[in-house]
Amino acid sequence: MDQLEVDAVAEAELDDPVLVEGLPGVGHVGKLAVDHLIEELAGESTLVRRIYSREFPPQVSVEDGVSELTCTEIHAVSVEDGRDLLLLTGDHQAQSNEGHYVLTDAFLDVAEEFGASEVFALGGVPTGELIDEYAVVGAVSDESMCDEFEDAGVEFREDEPAGGIVGVSGLLLGLGDRRGFDAACLMGETSGYIVDPKSARAVLETLEELLGFELEYDSLDERAEEMEEVVGKIQEMEQQQGMDVPTDDDLRYIG
Amino acid sequence: MDQLEVDAVAEAELDDPVLVEGLPGVGHVGKLAVDHLIEELAGESTLVRRIYSREFPPQVSVEDGVSELTCTEIHAVSVEDGRDLLLLTGDHQAQSNEGHYVLTDAFLDVAEEFGASEVFALGGVPTGELIDEYAVVGAVSDESMCDEFEDAGVEFREDEPAGGIVGVSGLLLGLGDRRGFDAACLMGETSGYIVDPKSARAVLETLEELLGFELEYDSLDERAEEMEEVVGKIQEMEQQQGMDVPTDDDLRYIG
Amino acid sequence: MDQLEVDAVAEAELDDPVLVEGLPGVGHVGKLAVDHLIEELAGESTLVRRIYSREFPPQVSVEDGVSELTCTEIHAVSVEDGRDLLLLTGDHQAQSNEGHYVLTDAFLDVAEEFGASEVFALGGVPTGELIDEYAVVGAVSDESMCDEFEDAGVEFREDEPAGGIVGVSGLLLGLGDRRGFDAACLMGETSGYIVDPKSARAVLETLEELLGFELEYDSLDERAEEMEEVVGKIQEMEQQQGMDVPTDDDLRYIG
Amino acid sequence: MDQLEVDAVAEAELDDPVLVEGLPGVGHVGKLAVDHLIEELAGESTLVRRIYSREFPPQVSVEDGVSELTCTEIHAVSVEDGRDLLLLTGDHQAQSNEGHYVLTDAFLDVAEEFGASEVFALGGVPTGELIDEYAVVGAVSDESMCDEFEDAGVEFREDEPAGGIVGVSGLLLGLGDRRGFDAACLMGETSGYIVDPKSARAVLETLEELLGFELEYDSLDERAEEMEEVVGKIQEMEQQQGMDVPTDDDLRYIG
Repeated sequence: MDQLEVDAVAEAELDDPVLVEGLPGVGHVGKLAVDHLIEELAGESTLVRRIYSREFPPQVSVEDGVSELTCTEIHAVSVEDGRDLLLLTGDHQAQSNEGHYVLTDAFLDVAEEFGASEVFALGGVPTGELIDEYAVVGAVSDESMCDEFEDAGVEFREDEPAGGIVGVSGLLLGLGDRRGFDAACLMGETSGYIVDPKSARAVLETLEELLGFELEYDSLDERAEEMEEVVGKIQEMEQQQGMDVPTDDDLRYIG
Repeated sequence: MDQLEVDAVAEAELDDPVLVEGLPGVGHVGKLAVDHLIEELAGESTLVRRIYSREFPPQVSVEDGVSELTCTEIHAVSVEDGRDLLLLTGDHQAQSNEGHYVLTDAFLDVAEEFGASEVFALGGVPTGELIDEYAVVGAVSDESMCDEFEDAGVEFREDEPAGGIVGVSGLLLGLGDRRGFDAACLMGETSGYIVDPKSARAVLETLEELLGFELEYDSLDERAEEMEEVVGKIQEMEQQQGMDVPTDDDLRYIG
Repeated sequence: MDQLEVDAVAEAELDDPVLVEGLPGVGHVGKLAVDHLIEELAGESTLVRRIYSREFPPQVSVEDGVSELTCTEIHAVSVEDGRDLLLLTGDHQAQSNEGHYVLTDAFLDVAEEFGASEVFALGGVPTGELIDEYAVVGAVSDESMCDEFEDAGVEFREDEPAGGIVGVSGLLLGLGDRRGFDAACLMGETSGYIVDPKSARAVLETLEELLGFELEYDSLDERAEEMEEVVGKIQEMEQQQGMDVPTDDDLRYIG
Repeated sequence: MDQLEVDAVAEAELDDPVLVEGLPGVGHVGKLAVDHLIEELAGESTLVRRIYSREFPPQVSVEDGVSELTCTEIHAVSVEDGRDLLLLTGDHQAQSNEGHYVLTDAFLDVAEEFGASEVFALGGVPTGELIDEYAVVGAVSDESMCDEFEDAGVEFREDEPAGGIVGVSGLLLGLGDRRGFDAACLMGETSGYIVDPKSARAVLETLEELLGFELEYDSLDERAEEMEEVVGKIQEMEQQQGMDVPTDDDLRYIG
């Protein structure tokens, strides 16, 4: 295997699409959001690229006994009455600093190939506590982009995200900007303790405003209810035992 | 030393051989299994390749005062009344993510060189507790392979192995598939606490069904008895002291 | 992104300038010092180079919602009645051993490009306890440099810094020397517990002696007062609770 | 800086020299031994090579205020009535797996350049407790070398060193063997808790038998006495406080 191998699985004609990234991160917000998009827009979408790399963890996932090598998938979506999309999803991020740079450049190469000049990185910003209201915090590669995003309900806050944005989401902003893309990162507030379907919904509702597609949220809402039950039970246990609030690691099976 | 150095120690004519991998992993199941094969089939086998690499830990093993540089060995076995074999064994895995990809490609190169198009990776799947019955769980690179394996007693389970398969075993499936091999991973259930000769035996019995060779198990059974004595003693100590069940690290001398 | 990308943002004519480095380190002394220089000499200075690299952490910083990719900046300063300067500042060091060597060579390349043959690395040397007097300890690439520095108040101590000098500051001495530069490292004593504006001031006062520029210190003194208040409060808490003196990590927000 | 830079500091004519390596390791036995050789044979020796590398930690050591970039030094020694020597010493090992392979090959390159075909790696083998008798345990690259070493008092033990030999010492055996050298590792028994001049002396006395030079041991014996005083004091403290025996880390200042 080379450092990067991009499989052209199929082709698609898109008109000025937007690359939307949802790799695993805080609260899995970005991943839940993009996976939901892929599910909801399945009728109009085509898997176009699979990206394999030595920068990914050396492993296969196994489903019903059949193995699949770690990769990132890109789906092309022709959206009626909305912007065309390139949806980027996967189960793993790169495993080294250099790997993040290499993979982000690969994603932007595919975006350019399909004529995209805009990038949205989706993720979560941790609040440290369970919340009821879900704001969407933004970061953009150029100041001129702020107004449009604020109109769509995105909040630009003075000291957030503290510590900047790390990993592929951050580099899509940083390298995207250097390569002439308009890049933005939308981060749903989330506790940081759980996989958070409600935060993913908040981010998607903002995207609906910005990109024109329309979504149903039934399956995400179902997952949110399951999560709430589980969190409720854990909080009970917590009170009985004086435990710390469990971290996202403890709750990995849940969601 | 280059990144990879493959020493051709000897040559052998094989007919459509199967590559069988047994590097160290969970419970050392794969390693015990392949080392046992090498021992039992010594009469029909030739050491053909030694693979050295900067990806291996920088060390030598010492036996009776004589040093040997870390490497992986491949033995060619001409089996009467059974499939020909390429047996891959060693004491160490690669030490970096990239290293796993590089070494797995090197193993598949040697397999291709000898005309192999099938790969078996052997390992263990941890149950978290000492067990009496030893199922063999499977993963394959293509769905079409399942029936034959199920007939041989391999179980394909919906949620196992959780977290997929990591390291060379996983990549033999992933990269093997991309390079046109039929690849399978057979994992003997094992506690994960001890080096497990019984689990190795379960995996080998499955391989006998699939590949046609016949084995004696005396030496493996002896090791299993030794392990049981030791485990018994530790469980006694445990009850006396309220210790946790020891991990595989604690028991490294044993086996 | 290549391993290194040097953006020529602007040009400037300098006469035998001195490269002065202030990347983050012990007590952030070097960084505070150089950032103060950039602030105070803003009238005479031009941002000439931005250095991006895969060796930097893969992240963007976000200020008022706008992202900026990790980089190191070099400002050219034409100082009246003093030595011309190349001021090197940034928020991050390289993330790997090799990265430090690569980036230091890049900084020296820029220095050569502007005709510099002298390098000052600024930093802190930890004392392990809060102090009142701030000596400036020195290290030079060649013995012949000691006298001039001692005249300016720099102390050369027999056993300090213990363990040598690590990171870009150390390599500016080591690689600088190999490339024909006169290199020196000035380290202000600091507790190691806090970001230390007083230590930065001590280092700057020494530089004033050596390089001829003149500085005001109002903003640094203000920060020093804020720090003292905070430290005072923490010492009170400490006495009440019997806590250890907080480390620099605990006080990261402060400064 | 390239991955490797070998400075030819001076030249020397040697007759079939032996490369003797003493980089830091267990108990600093190898380093103490080679540094003692360099000190004792100063009259007949010339510093011939300095090896710099990106594989070394990015730092400079500072002595009396003057910096020196991390490197390995090789001294050529013309020994009257004994084998000629190439003495390899330094303060640091490589910082990555690959780095160990790269540096060991560089050391062997220099050895070949001076006509050497034999290598001695010196080190310590930890016993886990303070000892009075100091055996020297051996490992060789070829069985035929054992007799000569046993005659000189080296012990070849069945299960030692457990876990093999790691780092440059191990690779001098492993890569040395592949490149046609006769390679041996001599390891003085040592507790593993302290820098151990007595162990270094035991190894040097064995070398005297094997290589013909004659040494005085006054300075090493002095250091051994200092260590014993310190260890005595620590054992007293230990008894008073019920402390664990301090590790080598705790005693780094001592020696």
